[in-house]
Amino acid sequence: MSWNTFGRTLRFTTWGESHGPAIGAVVDGCPPGLPLAEEDIQPFLDARKPGQNKFTTQRKEPDAVRILSGVFEGTTTGTPISLLIENTDQRSKDYSEIANTYRPGHADYAYDAKYGLRDYRGGGRSSARETAMRVAAGAVARLVIPEVSILAYVAEIGGDRIDPANFDTEEIARNPFWCPDAAAAKRWEAMIDEARKAGSSLGAVVECVATGVPAGWGAPIYAKLDCDLAAGMMSINAVKGVEIGDGFDAARLTGEQNADAMSPGDDGPEFAANHAGGIAGGISTGQPVVCRVAFKPTSSILTPVDSIDRQGQAAQVRTKGRHDPCVGIRGTLVVEAMMALVLADHRLLHRAQCG
Amino acid sequence: MSWNTFGRTLRFTTWGESHGPAIGAVVDGCPPGLPLAEEDIQPFLDARKPGQNKFTTQRKEPDAVRILSGVFEGTTTGTPISLLIENTDQRSKDYSEIANTYRPGHADYAYDAKYGLRDYRGGGRSSARETAMRVAAGAVARLVIPEVSILAYVAEIGGDRIDPANFDTEEIARNPFWCPDAAAAKRWEAMIDEARKAGSSLGAVVECVATGVPAGWGAPIYAKLDCDLAAGMMSINAVKGVEIGDGFDAARLTGEQNADAMSPGDDGPEFAANHAGGIAGGISTGQPVVCRVAFKPTSSILTPVDSIDRQGQAAQVRTKGRHDPCVGIRGTLVVEAMMALVLADHRLLHRAQCG
Amino acid sequence: MSWNTFGRTLRFTTWGESHGPAIGAVVDGCPPGLPLAEEDIQPFLDARKPGQNKFTTQRKEPDAVRILSGVFEGTTTGTPISLLIENTDQRSKDYSEIANTYRPGHADYAYDAKYGLRDYRGGGRSSARETAMRVAAGAVARLVIPEVSILAYVAEIGGDRIDPANFDTEEIARNPFWCPDAAAAKRWEAMIDEARKAGSSLGAVVECVATGVPAGWGAPIYAKLDCDLAAGMMSINAVKGVEIGDGFDAARLTGEQNADAMSPGDDGPEFAANHAGGIAGGISTGQPVVCRVAFKPTSSILTPVDSIDRQGQAAQVRTKGRHDPCVGIRGTLVVEAMMALVLADHRLLHRAQCG
Amino acid sequence: MSWNTFGRTLRFTTWGESHGPAIGAVVDGCPPGLPLAEEDIQPFLDARKPGQNKFTTQRKEPDAVRILSGVFEGTTTGTPISLLIENTDQRSKDYSEIANTYRPGHADYAYDAKYGLRDYRGGGRSSARETAMRVAAGAVARLVIPEVSILAYVAEIGGDRIDPANFDTEEIARNPFWCPDAAAAKRWEAMIDEARKAGSSLGAVVECVATGVPAGWGAPIYAKLDCDLAAGMMSINAVKGVEIGDGFDAARLTGEQNADAMSPGDDGPEFAANHAGGIAGGISTGQPVVCRVAFKPTSSILTPVDSIDRQGQAAQVRTKGRHDPCVGIRGTLVVEAMMALVLADHRLLHRAQCG
Repeated sequence: MSWNTFGRTLRFTTWGESHGPAIGAVVDGCPPGLPLAEEDIQPFLDARKPGQNKFTTQRKEPDAVRILSGVFEGTTTGTPISLLIENTDQRSKDYSEIANTYRPGHADYAYDAKYGLRDYRGGGRSSARETAMRVAAGAVARLVIPEVSILAYVAEIGGDRIDPANFDTEEIARNPFWCPDAAAAKRWEAMIDEARKAGSSLGAVVECVATGVPAGWGAPIYAKLDCDLAAGMMSINAVKGVEIGDGFDAARLTGEQNADAMSPGDDGPEFAANHAGGIAGGISTGQPVVCRVAFKPTSSILTPVDSIDRQGQAAQVRTKGRHDPCVGIRGTLVVEAMMALVLADHRLLHRAQCG
Repeated sequence: MSWNTFGRTLRFTTWGESHGPAIGAVVDGCPPGLPLAEEDIQPFLDARKPGQNKFTTQRKEPDAVRILSGVFEGTTTGTPISLLIENTDQRSKDYSEIANTYRPGHADYAYDAKYGLRDYRGGGRSSARETAMRVAAGAVARLVIPEVSILAYVAEIGGDRIDPANFDTEEIARNPFWCPDAAAAKRWEAMIDEARKAGSSLGAVVECVATGVPAGWGAPIYAKLDCDLAAGMMSINAVKGVEIGDGFDAARLTGEQNADAMSPGDDGPEFAANHAGGIAGGISTGQPVVCRVAFKPTSSILTPVDSIDRQGQAAQVRTKGRHDPCVGIRGTLVVEAMMALVLADHRLLHRAQCG
Repeated sequence: MSWNTFGRTLRFTTWGESHGPAIGAVVDGCPPGLPLAEEDIQPFLDARKPGQNKFTTQRKEPDAVRILSGVFEGTTTGTPISLLIENTDQRSKDYSEIANTYRPGHADYAYDAKYGLRDYRGGGRSSARETAMRVAAGAVARLVIPEVSILAYVAEIGGDRIDPANFDTEEIARNPFWCPDAAAAKRWEAMIDEARKAGSSLGAVVECVATGVPAGWGAPIYAKLDCDLAAGMMSINAVKGVEIGDGFDAARLTGEQNADAMSPGDDGPEFAANHAGGIAGGISTGQPVVCRVAFKPTSSILTPVDSIDRQGQAAQVRTKGRHDPCVGIRGTLVVEAMMALVLADHRLLHRAQCG
Repeated sequence: MSWNTFGRTLRFTTWGESHGPAIGAVVDGCPPGLPLAEEDIQPFLDARKPGQNKFTTQRKEPDAVRILSGVFEGTTTGTPISLLIENTDQRSKDYSEIANTYRPGHADYAYDAKYGLRDYRGGGRSSARETAMRVAAGAVARLVIPEVSILAYVAEIGGDRIDPANFDTEEIARNPFWCPDAAAAKRWEAMIDEARKAGSSLGAVVECVATGVPAGWGAPIYAKLDCDLAAGMMSINAVKGVEIGDGFDAARLTGEQNADAMSPGDDGPEFAANHAGGIAGGISTGQPVVCRVAFKPTSSILTPVDSIDRQGQAAQVRTKGRHDPCVGIRGTLVVEAMMALVLADHRLLHRAQCG
């Protein structure tokens, strides 16, 4: 069956298709008494919003969120919070070609194989448009964890990595790539422009760091904090890999190199390193929680690719239309949202069991 | 709270500590009428069993599984299957040192921060001993998906990778490393021996391939097949990264390079490549499902590491005792089991919604 | 936390307050390929709709449902179905009195004790208005179980029962009480009119019978068909009791009297009686599934009742405004909907495990 | 599928058949630091234990519980608590008759219709023996809610009710019927003796009162406290009805009669009555939580009943062997346990959302 709900205690359900009348989310289990208005959510949606520059899809959506329930006189009531965004830029276009053909790299064939039909307008439910609702739900989750700061940025595009020496937090919001390295941002601009003009696309790696998470969140064995992060990140469109802390690089270290030695600190232990990414045995250690997420290149490209149609005949597919040349860029906001949603959920879970 | 249950329709719950009287699992939701006896489970446990050679912990456990419920006259009844393994090799030893000190890289500090106490005997619940029950549960799951073949192997130890040109499926069971490359196995033997003697440890990367999965398993959005694989793999002790298909390498490809072009085939499409690892939009495509899992080096090492004790005072920790110099090796069996459990679950989920 | 989701495989989530801008439901896990349009849902909402006669609240709501997702070209796609009803008759009124006082029999005090605040407009989330969305979701569930017929009716109002000798299925839709006994309907008309004029209210018992349920639905032990029916019915506003089959009367029979003797039949066994209400061991037997539900009298009455205010001071409460003198009447539609939702869920659950 | 898990935050899973080697439960999510030993659980099992007098089955089971995990040095660790009871009195007997015939009133036919097979030894999984594990799990749950006192008793057997004027709490433990009315206990003794000798059986009604539950536990809409109580009680073998507070009698009151008027009290409101049974809008009000549960007469009777065999041929069934003439009596302990489990779960749920 289709399960469109994420979370254990703080749970959210999303619904809606790329080209339906609206998309929405229901956030359930939010603590009462938190100040919440549409203005608390809108900035995150504005940051993710398409059409803001030539490096993202030119679909123009205001993505104006409405709160339909769960808030009364400016604060959350503890009942479900319904969030809704109307789809406004659903161009009437001829879908006859795409309706009958499977776009390689997309979910077209898999959906059809599963359901025997599919909503082919803009990918229907499999469109990344769904992620707007995660960003909205994530804005609510942030209210539940005021002690935590979450920062995500693009660390790599098309195999070109940022230089840690150039890392500047302030820079992240200054360029259209959420890139903390001004020099890399300059290079990426040229790379993406070239890919876009060539009808191609590029992949990206996004890093996300949450500071202020106290030791003790997470729950062994199958509700480990890193399990839920892995599931949450892997559920984002185009994501193919997730690492916690050093991730695959940890597999290349020795035990001594990988040990995060501890020493006495003022407020809990001090750690000499954070190879573990702030999680041990599925439970937070008090260090920053660090996660890395791999986005494949956008599957929708102008360059023709061999495929088949619904009748099983050979066909060629060129995906015309408005697409991000690098979905990982806007994915940064979604990664932040999922981090917030997982942490907020685990804060409540921890409180349930341990008070 | 602590959630020790995995799965949606085919669910299993594990319990037990490293040095308690026993460990166990309850597998719920298994279809009725499947032939099942202890002999169907034991070979997988024997393969994972410790103490078989010098490359694994010298703890001697027969790991003899008993079926306590859910099977009648040789077949599953549809009611919960209770599996139990007695712990037999719990050496009486002096835990006073470890009881008061946190081993870096282990869950010791995090458990204590969460629960205010911990079972320090062999890591208690956080011990990899729990994974024996996944292997047992996985053997049951395999019965649910007879059309699927699952093969996992070690692809890399300490940064030294297998050579694809040497790949030989037959070789995997011939060496103690589940390594498909005889030459690599030889190199690893020396590497691990050296690490063991040096009181150190090594990390590993395990690959797992499931063939025979039909198109259509998986369920958008938050029950995607790859979400559940990511969660399942990340829940294994020492795992720090999960990739589907090309994973992080996909982030370095262009859209054309990454596209798995399709052409007409006898039975569904033929794919020119499998960068996607057999999953698109969270749903299987009919190609092999491919997953890669990064294991950090064993945290229990003889080399002393700086740490603190429960009173917050500086301390040094050397983890004496019986430990795998490379946990990824025996992890191979656990990865296979988790693949089986996720796929079996999704087979039933798919049947629920789509008949 | 607040859990506004019901179901295991076919799941629905409701949201919305009595006097917010809208109420809604998200139905998840629905099989694909079922023909569905707003016209399939609206008749059930019209039947439940307030303001149709003097025996229900005079609130005028068109209760026009919109399908916002999950349906494409007239059929369900397998993705979540979002249903929305705008609230149109939210009279601006002075809530100052009710905002500060707890209405006895209502959830006012309990909500405030739990959340530290409450949406006092019309009861907020605790209003029976939420049940409109169950009726809408139930209309979707009916499509999943075309072999099943569900019939609910009022069997008792204010202690006055129908006479089984007068039972006429055709009569049910002919009177405003869903009463199968024309003579009882006449008596009830006078009783309710009197209660209404006296500023009082009456309770009711609703019976629901589902025919066509095959043997084998339901799942021991904690997902028994009768467990889910009990939970589903008890979740309806004002419900205080649930019986399966003979219910409490079964406690007054001997073992021989209560036995539903079986004899050979053409298609499964024939049963000499149905004391069990079609469920044994939590699993359907092929007989009609029978459930009885007790509704307390409407708590909102004009007659003054002693209470306290938020400051803990004594107060008297008269609930002015538009209220059903007997909530059980319109509850009949909600009982039918919950029966449909539970059965549809179990049909999919059964298919998951047993094919 | 078969779901053998109950609860949301404090969850327990049971497994085992009547005549298998053992039965067990896994209690997950228990807070850490609670003192727990087998001696805390055993008295509840001893009270439920069969074979203690002629009014219960003569099966002799010591029902000695073992704790296999989740407790270290005398306190709970926060990890899953595994409880196990060996079945010792599994008489070797000839099952050939019962194996091929369906006992009316039992789950025999329904299980076979669902699963295509069944464990016919003593009812297999559908046996009330499973309830021993609920009693054990309930003993753990009681530790989570030390502020709450739970008292269940039999209020009615074979239609003969206790006289409220005779209610004496001390009396409950003095007779073998958990009856608070000494005169009724005397009458019941004769009634049950007669039923037993006649090869018949009787039904019963059990009442359960929990005092000390603070206002605010429970969670609208589908996790209402009364929903979970209804599901939990209905899941007990032989239960056919559940009432909260006045239950079906509330349907016969007017709004004024049913209103639980409030007045200022020292610690929250004082209530003039408790028709609501301590729950409004699914949330506790601070009054005692009151629940009534109807048990049908034992289905296993010596008197022959018409039935069919697996081949669909007519057959007569006499259930020889050792059976309680009135299952409701020992059911009293199970009702108490389910009350404890539901309340403990909701205590943690409430803490998760509201702190």
